[in-house]
Amino acid sequence: MSIRIFLTGGTFDKEYNELTGQLFFKDSHLPEMLDLGRCLVAVDIRTLMMIDSLEMTDIDRDLIALHCAEADEQHIIITHGTDTMAHTARLLSQKIKNKTVVLTGAMIPYKFGSSDGLFNLGSAMAFVQTLPQGVYIAMNGRFFDANNVQKNKETGVFEEVE
Amino acid sequence: MSIRIFLTGGTFDKEYNELTGQLFFKDSHLPEMLDLGRCLVAVDIRTLMMIDSLEMTDIDRDLIALHCAEADEQHIIITHGTDTMAHTARLLSQKIKNKTVVLTGAMIPYKFGSSDGLFNLGSAMAFVQTLPQGVYIAMNGRFFDANNVQKNKETGVFEEVE
Amino acid sequence: MSIRIFLTGGTFDKEYNELTGQLFFKDSHLPEMLDLGRCLVAVDIRTLMMIDSLEMTDIDRDLIALHCAEADEQHIIITHGTDTMAHTARLLSQKIKNKTVVLTGAMIPYKFGSSDGLFNLGSAMAFVQTLPQGVYIAMNGRFFDANNVQKNKETGVFEEVE
Amino acid sequence: MSIRIFLTGGTFDKEYNELTGQLFFKDSHLPEMLDLGRCLVAVDIRTLMMIDSLEMTDIDRDLIALHCAEADEQHIIITHGTDTMAHTARLLSQKIKNKTVVLTGAMIPYKFGSSDGLFNLGSAMAFVQTLPQGVYIAMNGRFFDANNVQKNKETGVFEEVE
Repeated sequence: MSIRIFLTGGTFDKEYNELTGQLFFKDSHLPEMLDLGRCLVAVDIRTLMMIDSLEMTDIDRDLIALHCAEADEQHIIITHGTDTMAHTARLLSQKIKNKTVVLTGAMIPYKFGSSDGLFNLGSAMAFVQTLPQGVYIAMNGRFFDANNVQKNKETGVFEEVE
Repeated sequence: MSIRIFLTGGTFDKEYNELTGQLFFKDSHLPEMLDLGRCLVAVDIRTLMMIDSLEMTDIDRDLIALHCAEADEQHIIITHGTDTMAHTARLLSQKIKNKTVVLTGAMIPYKFGSSDGLFNLGSAMAFVQTLPQGVYIAMNGRFFDANNVQKNKETGVFEEVE
Repeated sequence: MSIRIFLTGGTFDKEYNELTGQLFFKDSHLPEMLDLGRCLVAVDIRTLMMIDSLEMTDIDRDLIALHCAEADEQHIIITHGTDTMAHTARLLSQKIKNKTVVLTGAMIPYKFGSSDGLFNLGSAMAFVQTLPQGVYIAMNGRFFDANNVQKNKETGVFEEVE
Repeated sequence: MSIRIFLTGGTFDKEYNELTGQLFFKDSHLPEMLDLGRCLVAVDIRTLMMIDSLEMTDIDRDLIALHCAEADEQHIIITHGTDTMAHTARLLSQKIKNKTVVLTGAMIPYKFGSSDGLFNLGSAMAFVQTLPQGVYIAMNGRFFDANNVQKNKETGVFEEVE
């Protein structure tokens, strides 16, 4: 089984600029994280964008959907900022019917040492291999159907809508 | 869904004794790792033993099987040293038929900072929720059926027997 | 020898707010860092403020000077943001003549895992025990006299003025 | 000021072999640690040996002394296992009279993430620039004269002999 990984940015890949004290994007840490996890699943990683998900437009989401539709792989992981992850998942679920797509992210940047990112990536890698066709969010060790998930803005936790 | 986690030791939980320079077991880091991963799946953690898997006897394995059989949960994760993980999985698969059991471990102790453990725990947590009844090993982002898996002693990698 | 440590904030002690994605101050990590370094020098730690040094006013600096003057200890370390550290050091050097005062900080928050803070704290702890009376900055493994030091804004490095 | 650093091994540079579960030496982490500390002091690093200090012989110590005597630099740091560090320091102090030599080490390997090594290296770097000629041990934020120091085997802490 081969898995396509699309990178879009989000907290996952943020870094600290020591001159300005601001957070910014440089390169993705996905390859380094897969090495650390000694992951031996065949993957093909593509960076589609590298942005904060609050800045993601529906044009960006169409681009993501297009790449999902055209990928040869049947199993796709998308790294994504958590703020609008549920919105992107919902749009994708309308367009991608015959593949398993798992969106995941992180609350703490991987570079900050105490990140949830590696745990989330491990769970996304497993969910994408085992869940039936559809679009899902993998966070907090759980998976959610794209049509029944929201991020609780107060707690930062993903939950079913009802 | 509630998940039972049985701890048996292994590299996962080894620590460095700074007075003797030896590795040893103290407390498990599982709760800390689940916190780090912001895992919100309901879990019940029990320590059955805290040993190097090279020292595990078949009496120990019977004890593990007994706990798996008697657990209320249908979904069980077992942390285990990698050296004899395949052997334990095979024995369990003969005794536990109606539950999903996932064994996982680590090549590098969690306390050593650059461990694969958090990634493996994330994938085990996902596999145990989605795989059908049976006994499995989750390592390197992959899952293996208990009756067709071995650890390659030269590379340290888990692989199918044939 | 007993050493007084005054905390004023700075990058040293910044944390990442996972709900807002902003950096903020909570508690100081100094005690944890001294534990990690297995530091056995007698210290007395006091938090005077917990701010970004760009927001520090000369009233704040007068307060720091007052505490330095009134401290029983002859050896004082001050943790401080790097942006205005040289300015504070210069003001202190005019008021504190009979003690050894060492200011130090970090370019990367300690909580981010790959911080220079622990190295800087180790060097500050050593310099404060061995340098003659005066006010100094300890950064990058070096020490600078308070009256001949500036932060190079482009490189982020402390250097002599001429 | 230029500083010579001699590496001899010790816990500082131990790594974990994930196939055997044993600790071993590969390359030194000193350059990486100095980068992490953003150290800008001019240094020249030489590896003399890479061994556990319990295996160090007096022939090894003569070699270290010879290198200290012949170095162009007046300021020398030696990384060394803690078990026989006091013994080596005493021998060096008989032979090296006109330079400042500071031995330091670590209780936890640097690669294990929660090491005291970076703190100790920061303090050694500062002590070697400021202490008068002589041979010293820098551990736990303190410095000790080579002729009045021992490692307390029960606590792992360096202390004056009386």
